[in-house]
Amino acid sequence: MAISFEILASDGTARRGRLHTAHGAVETPVFMPVGTLGTVKAVAQDVLEELGVEILLNNTYHLYLRPGVEMVRALGGVQRFMAWDKPILTDSGGFQVFSLSELRKVTEEGVAFRSHLDGSSHMFTPENSIAAQIGLGADIIMAFDECTEHPASHERARESMVMTLRWLKRSRDYFEAHKEEVVWFGGKSPTAGCSGEERKANSEERSQTQALFGIVQGGMYPDLRRESAQRTVEINLPGYAIGGLSVGEPRPMTYEMVDAAIPYLPENKPRYLMGVGTPEEIVHYVAQGVDMMDCVLPTRAARHGLLFTSEGRLTIKNARFAQDEGPIDPKCSCKVCGRYSRAYLRHLYASNELLAQTLNTVHNLAYYLDTMRRVRQSIILGEFATFLSGVKPPHLSVP
Amino acid sequence: MAISFEILASDGTARRGRLHTAHGAVETPVFMPVGTLGTVKAVAQDVLEELGVEILLNNTYHLYLRPGVEMVRALGGVQRFMAWDKPILTDSGGFQVFSLSELRKVTEEGVAFRSHLDGSSHMFTPENSIAAQIGLGADIIMAFDECTEHPASHERARESMVMTLRWLKRSRDYFEAHKEEVVWFGGKSPTAGCSGEERKANSEERSQTQALFGIVQGGMYPDLRRESAQRTVEINLPGYAIGGLSVGEPRPMTYEMVDAAIPYLPENKPRYLMGVGTPEEIVHYVAQGVDMMDCVLPTRAARHGLLFTSEGRLTIKNARFAQDEGPIDPKCSCKVCGRYSRAYLRHLYASNELLAQTLNTVHNLAYYLDTMRRVRQSIILGEFATFLSGVKPPHLSVP
Repeated sequence: MAISFEILASDGTARRGRLHTAHGAVETPVFMPVGTLGTVKAVAQDVLEELGVEILLNNTYHLYLRPGVEMVRALGGVQRFMAWDKPILTDSGGFQVFSLSELRKVTEEGVAFRSHLDGSSHMFTPENSIAAQIGLGADIIMAFDECTEHPASHERARESMVMTLRWLKRSRDYFEAHKEEVVWFGGKSPTAGCSGEERKANSEERSQTQALFGIVQGGMYPDLRRESAQRTVEINLPGYAIGGLSVGEPRPMTYEMVDAAIPYLPENKPRYLMGVGTPEEIVHYVAQGVDMMDCVLPTRAARHGLLFTSEGRLTIKNARFAQDEGPIDPKCSCKVCGRYSRAYLRHLYASNELLAQTLNTVHNLAYYLDTMRRVRQSIILGEFATFLSGVKPPHLSVP
Repeated sequence: MAISFEILASDGTARRGRLHTAHGAVETPVFMPVGTLGTVKAVAQDVLEELGVEILLNNTYHLYLRPGVEMVRALGGVQRFMAWDKPILTDSGGFQVFSLSELRKVTEEGVAFRSHLDGSSHMFTPENSIAAQIGLGADIIMAFDECTEHPASHERARESMVMTLRWLKRSRDYFEAHKEEVVWFGGKSPTAGCSGEERKANSEERSQTQALFGIVQGGMYPDLRRESAQRTVEINLPGYAIGGLSVGEPRPMTYEMVDAAIPYLPENKPRYLMGVGTPEEIVHYVAQGVDMMDCVLPTRAARHGLLFTSEGRLTIKNARFAQDEGPIDPKCSCKVCGRYSRAYLRHLYASNELLAQTLNTVHNLAYYLDTMRRVRQSIILGEFATFLSGVKPPHLSVP
């Protein structure tokens, strides 16, 4: 048993669900903050908890290089390593090495690449990506895929997509053979039939294994997206992702590709759209039937002084905020908006103060998480269509 | 009325007191974290509150350059600007321009200097330093002094010291003429004889003015320190500082200079030793009769990965911590030690993650504040001598 997923309500194609993982439950639709190196940059774990973060993402590529998979395993896996006792998802490293472009070489075996840190040579294959992800020990792990470049010809996109399918089978085979090796897996319910002492010894063990998700590819071709979805689902996994989007294509094309794949993904499994999006876009993807999303946008934009508000984007370094005593967003209830003025935040940013990065990030994450909270509530109430109609047309809102 | 100071207990020459300022009370002996630009670098204000910080220091020189005194005044003064509704102390800018060395020129009138940011020309005089500090609106402000360089001849140190006395009179005269201009001063008790509406309008007004402290100088000559203390006290101010120490002299000489001045400072006024020290040293200074201290050491060292613990200093980037699952300090009750391992903190620091700077700073501040908490408690219990004897001889502990 890996994860289980229940749908609590639906409204059109939008779904309100709950994902049960080895480290706890996640209310969906969910936005997952990115914690590349085992930290959501500039934000402490207790602040993430206060924000209501239920699951975050770590990057296998980065943790593989620093501090190394064996180190994280020896320290109890990513949750214990980063003192975060809630669900974590790791990517496969496929997208990360894809974005290295000049430093990688793709073959049927896998992807040879050079470290961005020291130029050292490495190779990711489906087998060792899964091995690394079992070593890291996230609750949800991703099959090793090729993110098809954009633009690509139909022939090239199809070749890439079918290789991803072959890699999926290798990922699945390796995972099935080794899934019980994850450091926190105990193979039984920690409370079932144990004496008190055994229960204590097993207190950090879990009865669930990790969950392996497959990834739909297919470039920007609806027929390939459909074929990829159908053939990925044949592998019968606990969840499915849609990858290879938000790689430079116009936004309407992204929506079209999501629409091409979603009908072929099973209703009773979580659907994860990788690497998206703006606050408006993530609402739109929910309307398409997506349950999980992640993106560096709220955190990375915050570190560059770009803040999301109910009244639109705001560049905090702008001189017009120098004497502005108002909060970032008058409608926001986050602790940054409750305490600090735009004038102060502008001063921190203009002065390169570290606190600027923390406070900006906390606000942007609060804005994303609050958006998803309202999305979930509106689905429960059957008011999601109304909620969606109040969101600015997302294809006009690429930052 | 500016501040008031009461001594609750004493043990030998060590005093346990309470300082009442316009923005609340401060338990002494107190260590004041440095918040140069209106922020204790990398730490949010609510975390400072959790740590029990009761007063912090801002640097006039830095706020004068960014965002500018008039800006801070327009935004309600430093407390409101940085959303910190507790006491703040500003220095005079004298030490900051002293440390610019190549960029400054001292005359009887004041100090001409160039900005470290853009090379623009500025001048600090006793009058405009006090004007700037009234504009910033801290609860405690410092007379404009010359920090005598070390080493200096007796003649040079005396000339410098008597100029600081002349500057003190000019500082005091300017302050007395303008002290009611501080933005939050209401001139009356906010609740006395007001209608409800008036009370509301005056809710941020205070009945106390700022408090101006004088600064004892005199280089490394006990006779000059004594003369400076005696002549500074003649001005009759609400508190007195000892400046010009920790400028490169050996530590026993620092202690000697403190001992030379302290007997000539009145018992019923707070004594502030500027810019010190290590955790061991600050305990020793309390034993000498000091009530207030500030230093960038805990915060700056933290950002360079140097952590203070009950077992001594620890350089977190050291490879021997890579697999260390223990906390920074097993005896520390701070939230960093309660949650994170040395291995994780080492990973954050080695990976240049922003969170390293936050967590390291929180721990070091907790260590300093906890030290002072134990100092205060031991004075109340009459056990300070015992406490002091358990502290490593401070002249051996210069970092």
